[in-house]
This record gives sequence, structure tokens and C-alpha cells, in this order.
Amino acid sequence: MTNELQTVAWENGCVRMLDQNALPRELRWIEFDDWRDVVNAIRIMTVRGAPAIGATAALGLALGAAQIQTPNRDEFLSQFDDMAQAFAASRPTAVNLFWAIERMKTIVRNTPGDVSAIRAALLCDAKLILDEDIAANRAMGAFGAALLPDAARVITHCNAGALATVGHGTALGVIRSAVEAGKRIEVFADETRPRLQGMKLTAWELQRAGIPVTIMADNMAAVLLRDTKIDCVIVGADRIAANGDTANKIGTYGLAVQAQFHGVPFYVAAPLSTVDFALPDGSQIPIEERDAEEMTHSGNTHHAPDGVPIWNPAFDVTPAALISAIITEKGIARAPFSESLKGLANAPY
Amino acid sequence: MTNELQTVAWENGCVRMLDQNALPRELRWIEFDDWRDVVNAIRIMTVRGAPAIGATAALGLALGAAQIQTPNRDEFLSQFDDMAQAFAASRPTAVNLFWAIERMKTIVRNTPGDVSAIRAALLCDAKLILDEDIAANRAMGAFGAALLPDAARVITHCNAGALATVGHGTALGVIRSAVEAGKRIEVFADETRPRLQGMKLTAWELQRAGIPVTIMADNMAAVLLRDTKIDCVIVGADRIAANGDTANKIGTYGLAVQAQFHGVPFYVAAPLSTVDFALPDGSQIPIEERDAEEMTHSGNTHHAPDGVPIWNPAFDVTPAALISAIITEKGIARAPFSESLKGLANAPY
Repeated sequence: MTNELQTVAWENGCVRMLDQNALPRELRWIEFDDWRDVVNAIRIMTVRGAPAIGATAALGLALGAAQIQTPNRDEFLSQFDDMAQAFAASRPTAVNLFWAIERMKTIVRNTPGDVSAIRAALLCDAKLILDEDIAANRAMGAFGAALLPDAARVITHCNAGALATVGHGTALGVIRSAVEAGKRIEVFADETRPRLQGMKLTAWELQRAGIPVTIMADNMAAVLLRDTKIDCVIVGADRIAANGDTANKIGTYGLAVQAQFHGVPFYVAAPLSTVDFALPDGSQIPIEERDAEEMTHSGNTHHAPDGVPIWNPAFDVTPAALISAIITEKGIARAPFSESLKGLANAPY
Repeated sequence: MTNELQTVAWENGCVRMLDQNALPRELRWIEFDDWRDVVNAIRIMTVRGAPAIGATAALGLALGAAQIQTPNRDEFLSQFDDMAQAFAASRPTAVNLFWAIERMKTIVRNTPGDVSAIRAALLCDAKLILDEDIAANRAMGAFGAALLPDAARVITHCNAGALATVGHGTALGVIRSAVEAGKRIEVFADETRPRLQGMKLTAWELQRAGIPVTIMADNMAAVLLRDTKIDCVIVGADRIAANGDTANKIGTYGLAVQAQFHGVPFYVAAPLSTVDFALPDGSQIPIEERDAEEMTHSGNTHHAPDGVPIWNPAFDVTPAALISAIITEKGIARAPFSESLKGLANAPY
């Protein structure tokens, strides 16, 4: 098994997470004992990646439930709802966040008895979400690994690795599983502007796992797709509409266009909790726009002229037509995704 | 006329240039009184952009000729050749560099009389190259402006502006000329990783000229091409093969693929000195690979894990098939470029 770190965990009655803003130069964990700080950690991307955000919100709500002092069930429910709203407002695009919040709300509603019983049920289910995430990623990895030939050369974008999940990863989980199955895999990681998750996180994570990785700028992928034998592109997802349209880190759509132009398969790896069956297509997915300083500043260096507008969408939507397959924990979905995704969701695990 | 700066000039017996590595935070000129420092300035990109590099090399050779002390013609020629070789080794891709060096060598060969006559002829011709460059850019601008509708929205990559030339610019010269002709033009500037010439130079230059510009990451262009009415993409060129294949800043090829996918015209603006008729196609164009630190460092901030390989090609080649037109100072070339470019080269000015 490759060397892994648990991105987010329950430890000493706190939510512990690896500070992803400090990577790769520093390996630092932070323990949060206040749910408000967990909301902020999601917002400032101490933790990021759709499945990791969902798991973190679940743990954060369990933490917050322990902080709510009242023994009165109605008062508890009211305060819990306010807290859930704060988590829901932390970031808009990754649906796993809302999925986890809904799941925690269902626990609250369905747990009979006093407030302490609800608190216990929330913590139990939050921990279960963490375990399920790792199990889902391993299942996804097994399905996806079969798509990779030996000696495959793979392009990935952003970080859909152990760091974007509780462990193992989605897109990188497929690569990890292929390597565990004895295949040699070589990865080319888009640096992923503006926050450089590819350079900072994917390269670091794959290097730790002993998987060969080369960093390139996002704008170099097209040349690689043309001049080198690339077997496939694999990315994660922040939200998948019912028809397979996929929101993922900005740059994914352009990469998908380039993959199609060069006849290279384009795979999305994501748990079924990332599928938002309430949305018929990708046009309704809310796209977060983040601060201009993510683009214009690096450390203390300010690169841009003052006063020039900056466009900084954090995600884009890749239409299903450009996606060769969606790798889930229950199997591989292919077009038409509106049928295949629904079929997998309804299938037994 | 829009507000312009002269990127490189002959001043006080020195080569004076705007320090492009200090922009946009500082407006600073450097005067060079030793040709070796001019070679280094090209290498470290104090000056960059194919036409500007050519003009700088011409001035640098004129400066160097004044530094060669010998009155003996043969000794002078030998030292001049060594100096020309040093300039030729400064950067490999922009053909204007080699074009300017060859032109200076021809001056040396064809100037009769003593060494001081050669020196004078070199300086005179180097200054002529500067004047010709501005004139060519204005002619190119007039031809290219006709391609832009009023209220055009244009994507550009890297900096092919006044800063990449002696003045006015190639791709941005077309935009400047369209604005001078009374058209409203809105520009979207790729930031252009790794060195951010789009964010640092193009945005600064257009802001000074009062032309609306928005900065985006390179990986955002595809979404803009899909979701917004973009009238065209315009870029410059570092070397154009006889068949129209065009080397330009890394990322140009991927942008051309995306433009074609979305049915948006893709224009190259470059003087005919950028066409290398000795190369039948783009496969022979040497592509410079630059230092990994351009990718991994910003100021004092080091983003990447140590020991992970970095791929940093500075240019890529866009095949002629993806290019709608090449705008030159003698008119607009369209496919088949092998005929149209040759025709323009042989046409009277």
C-alpha cells in the first residue's frame, strides 16, 4: 500500500486536519475545537477537495453539536440549523458539502431521545462518512485501475488525491490502485493556477507515494497531448449533474477540449455523493468566484498592475459529451450518463 | 495616438531599455555601455518579444562595434563575428534575433573603407531597424484593425505589444490601431505562465493606453470562448515557418485548439522578419526550455516540493491549420500560407 496521510480526522475531541495551505514546504496539522474555525478552514482552503470538504463539514457539525450547551431538544435543533447554514455558506460549488450537511440533518431529525443521543449519533455518522470515503475511493480505484494500461502516461489537473478526500483519493486513487496492482504509471501534473494545487499538492502526494510525476504549467498540456503518447486524462469532480456535466477546478474544461482534439480519453473519478441528481445539467451549477489576490499575489510579491480587473472563477463545467467515462465506487458510468449514473446510484454496493 | 513607450533605444552612446522584469510595479530604464550586458539582458528577459529582441541585438552589435578597439579591418571582422555568435547564443527561438544579426553581418561585409566607416554604418542600420519596426507595426495595425468589428472582444496571450517590439506592438498594435480608428475593443489577457507577461506587461500596457483589459489565468480562456461572445484571438509570433506553422509563447497552441473548437478566428500578427523561409514547417523550430525556477518560485516564495521534475518549454508551435490569418506589414496572409507568405515577402512595401 502506498504511503498515505489522513487529510481530516477526529482526534482528542477535535477536528484535526492537515494544513494544505502550508504544503509542500511544511507538514503541519491543526486541531480545531470550535466549529466556527472549521467553517473558516473550509473557506480559506486549509482543507479542499469535494469529498474532503464533505467529510470535514460532517466532523465540524459533530464538533458543533458538542458545543451546543442546551439540553432542550428544540433549542438544540434551532442552533444546529444555524450552524448547518454557516457550513453551507462556506463554499458554493462542491455538492459533497451539501450532501454531508443534509446527511447530518437527517441524523438529527431521526435520532430519538435527548440531545446527548443526537450528539453521539452525529459523531458516529461523521466518522462513518470518513470510513465510507476511503472505502469508496478504494472501490473507485479498483474500477478505474482497469482502464489504465501498464506504463500508462496520465495527465491530471488540480489535486484529486488523498488530500482532496479522507484518504487514497479519487483521480489519484485510481492511479494509486493501478500502481498497487503492479502497473507502472507516469503522471504529468498541471500546476493548476491560480492556487497551484497541482504543483503544491499533487506533486507532493505522488512523490511521497513513489509515483513518478512531472509538473507543468496548465498551458503546456496541449503540447504534451500532441507530441507524447498520453494514455488518458483523469480528474476529480466537485459536482456532477444528472446528465454527466461535471464541475471541477477551473481549467478542466479547456483540458477536456484539448484531450478530445487529440483523441485522448478523458476520465472523471468521483464518488456518487458528488452527483447532484437534482440538477438536470451543468448550467445550474453555481460557480464560485474567488478573491483577485489569489491571481495577483504570491507570498509578498504583487504581480499585477493596480486597478486592472481580474476574473477568477474557481471552477468550470465540462459537458458530458467530452467525458469518456465517470469512475464511481459502484462501477464505471459511460454515456448516456443520465441513465448510467442513475443505474449506479440505485445499484447495491 | 495611444500612449506609448519606446522599449529599446540608442541614447547617449548606450543601448537604453525599459527593464521589463521590473514591470508593472516599477518603471525603470537601464543604459548599457557594454555589449556583453546587452546579451545578458536578452538572456534574462530584461527585454523580450521577438521584434524587440531583434532590434536590441542590432543596437547591441552597433554598441559592440564601437567597443572593438582595433583599427585593423580583419581583426575587427573576427571580433565582430565572435560578438555576433554571443548574441546568437542568447535565446534560440525568436528568428528576428538571427535575422537582425545576419543583417548586421551583411552591413559589415558590404561596407567598404576603414573600421570607423563600418561602425557608423552599423549604428545607422540598427537605428533604421528600430524605425522600420515601428513602421511595420503601424502598417500591420492598419491591416489587422480591419479584421476587428466595433465592440470586439479579443483574447490575447503573453505580450505582443509595444513592449515586445520597438513600439506600437504586433498583436496589441492591431488592437491599438483599431482603437485609434474609433473602435471600442475589450481585451482579455491570459496571465501567461510561468513568467506572467500577460498579467505584468499586457495588462499594464493596455491600461496605460486606456484600452479595457481583464486579466485571467491561461486555463480560463476556454470557458470565456464558450460562454461569452469572443470575436477573435490575436497573438504574436517568435518564428513562423514557410508553411505558416507558428512558434509563439507556450500556451498559444492550446489556445488555438480551443479557439477552433469554439469557432473563433485565431490571428497571428508578426512582421515578415519573423517568417523563417528556410524552414518548410514548424517541426524544425528550436524550442527553448527555461529554468525550473521560473515555474517553482515567485519572489522569495518556493511553491514546489523539492526534487520533482519540472517541464518548462518557453514556446510551442501552432500548426498553420489552426491559424485563420497571419497579419503582416504588407497585408494579410491566409491559407495556403506557403504561397501567401512568399507572395507578401516578394511584394513591394
